[in-house]
Order: sequence, then C-alpha cells, then structure tokens
Amino acid sequence: MSVEQASAQDTTAADEAHLKALVKYTSLSFNTPFPVCFGALIVDSQSGETLMRGRNAVARENDPSAHAELRTVRLACKKRKSYSLSGYTLYSTCEPCPMCMANALWAGLDRVVFGATIEDANQYCRQIQVPAAELARRSDMQCIVHGPVLRELCNTLFADPRMQAAFVTWGTRRVCR
Amino acid sequence: MSVEQASAQDTTAADEAHLKALVKYTSLSFNTPFPVCFGALIVDSQSGETLMRGRNAVARENDPSAHAELRTVRLACKKRKSYSLSGYTLYSTCEPCPMCMANALWAGLDRVVFGATIEDANQYCRQIQVPAAELARRSDMQCIVHGPVLRELCNTLFADPRMQAAFVTWGTRRVCR
Repeated sequence: MSVEQASAQDTTAADEAHLKALVKYTSLSFNTPFPVCFGALIVDSQSGETLMRGRNAVARENDPSAHAELRTVRLACKKRKSYSLSGYTLYSTCEPCPMCMANALWAGLDRVVFGATIEDANQYCRQIQVPAAELARRSDMQCIVHGPVLRELCNTLFADPRMQAAFVTWGTRRVCR
Repeated sequence: MSVEQASAQDTTAADEAHLKALVKYTSLSFNTPFPVCFGALIVDSQSGETLMRGRNAVARENDPSAHAELRTVRLACKKRKSYSLSGYTLYSTCEPCPMCMANALWAGLDRVVFGATIEDANQYCRQIQVPAAELARRSDMQCIVHGPVLRELCNTLFADPRMQAAFVTWGTRRVCR
C-alpha cells in the first residue's frame, strides 16, 4: 500500500452502501442534457443520515468550482447556515481533486470516502495529480481519507457510452488517449 | 530561487499597480463587520481591463469555498456566462491555497500573480502547505504563477490591528503562535 493512498480496510458496510446508492444517483444524470460521472453525498458521521447530495454542475452552472464535492459542501453549508461540516462524512464517486479536497479540509469534514481514483479520471479528463491523502497530510487540518473503495463499480460511470459521448463536449477532456 | 516558487522578475509595473489597488480595496473591509485580509482581482491579460474583484466571504456567506480567489472566479464566470477564464489574469493579495489554485487551473486562467505567501498566512491561520506553483506543475493544465510580489505591502493586511482582532473569531485561526 502506498503511503499516499489510504487503505480501504477501515471502511464499513455502511460506507459501501452509501457509495452504491451514490453511483446509482449519479448515473441518473445520463438521461439528462448534462451527463456527469461525478457525484457526492454528505452524511452525519454518527447516524449516517443524509444531509445533502449533488452532482457536478460545471457546464450547467458555468462555474468551474461546481465539482460534485465542492458544490455539495456548499449546498450543505447553506442548509446548515454554517461554514463547518465537522461531524459529517463526504462520499464521492471519484477521489476529490485538490480543489475539492482542500475545500473538504476547510469545511472540517471528519472523513472523505472515495471510489475511483484521480488516475482513473485522468484517462478521460485533465487532472491535477495530487492525491487527496497527500493534500490532507500536508495541512494543519485533520481529515481521514479512505479510498479507493468500490473502484470498479465507480469506474463504470466513466465507461458508460452516454458519458463517453458527453466527454467530447468537456473543456477539460483529454484528447487522443 | 526555489524550483517551486516562481520568480517575481517577470512581473510588470502594471502587475504591481493592480496589486497595490487590490491591497487598498481589501483593506476597506477593515471598517466593516467582516474584516478580511484576502482580496482578488481578475483582469483581461491583454488590455488590463478589470472583469471582477472580490474579497473572502467565508463567514459572511457561510461558505468554506468563498475564499477571495475562488469567489471572484465564480462571480467572473457568472458575469461572462462561461466556465472559462482563458485570456484573463488573477491577482491575489496572498498565494492561492490549493483549493483556489486548482480552481484557477480548472478555469483556464493565463496567469496568477500573488503578494504574500502561504507561509506568511500560516502565521495567523491554518493552511495547506502546497505552493501554488507546485500545484500548477503537477497538473495537465498551463498557468503561469508569479509571486511573491509586493510581499511586504501585502503582509501589512495581516498585521493591521483590526485584522488581528478579527482573526480571533476565525474557525481556522492558529492558536498560541
């Protein structure tokens, strides 16, 4: 196991159930005008109760920061009328990019559990190759990062033909790979 | 010169003029209920015309992503009805944290010019110790990062007694240092 890549061993059956439901919710976008393969979910770390869920909306909202994770954190904070999400866990179908992981740290989230990796996403879109666990380690904040979890399942979101067709329209698509 | 720290030698008199005006604009917050030391400005890279400027609004908007840079990018994209800021330059009173620098990369900004460093800010607030230039280098995107520029001037924003009093209320303040 790499030092920079946290183990999936400490994840629970509840974590897997949350991720499975999230993959299903994310795939619902494939039948909309804006198919996306990135979804996020925030739950109470103790009770598991859902606070917020959301999908990437960069193109729909003309906002480069509207990645699934950052957007869901923003909506959750708006709902709670607080800039802190201490006591909550973030699930993501893909490892948070440095923007989203840094935002998770600033929000004080307890844990981040992700499915596919930045390397997986990098087959289809440009990426910033800084692992989420490395970003957390190089900060003054505490956040447990688990992943990859259910990596193969989460990778099916990238591979779906409707998603492959959508990637062609993305400004961050990777060409000729 | 460090490999990770871009030189300020390629900055221009126009860059310094933009930063000086930005420091003044940022300091106007000291007379409001939410003093902040972080301000950002986006200008057309060719003409120098201002597209948008903004300040940190994390506490005011209950949004951990509302750092000056990310918030100003978001507002600029909303104004342009586009998720791309290719052709534009971002100025910041302080080196963008990984959230803001990653957002700058996703937005396709040409250049980022910053004043104080993450290390400077870290004397007062928690930080993520990943330099902006390193983040840009470890990505598939192109963005020129210049800084520190006018570091001492930008550091006066942190040192102002009204800002020092405000830091006490910040969730990310550093204690006993």
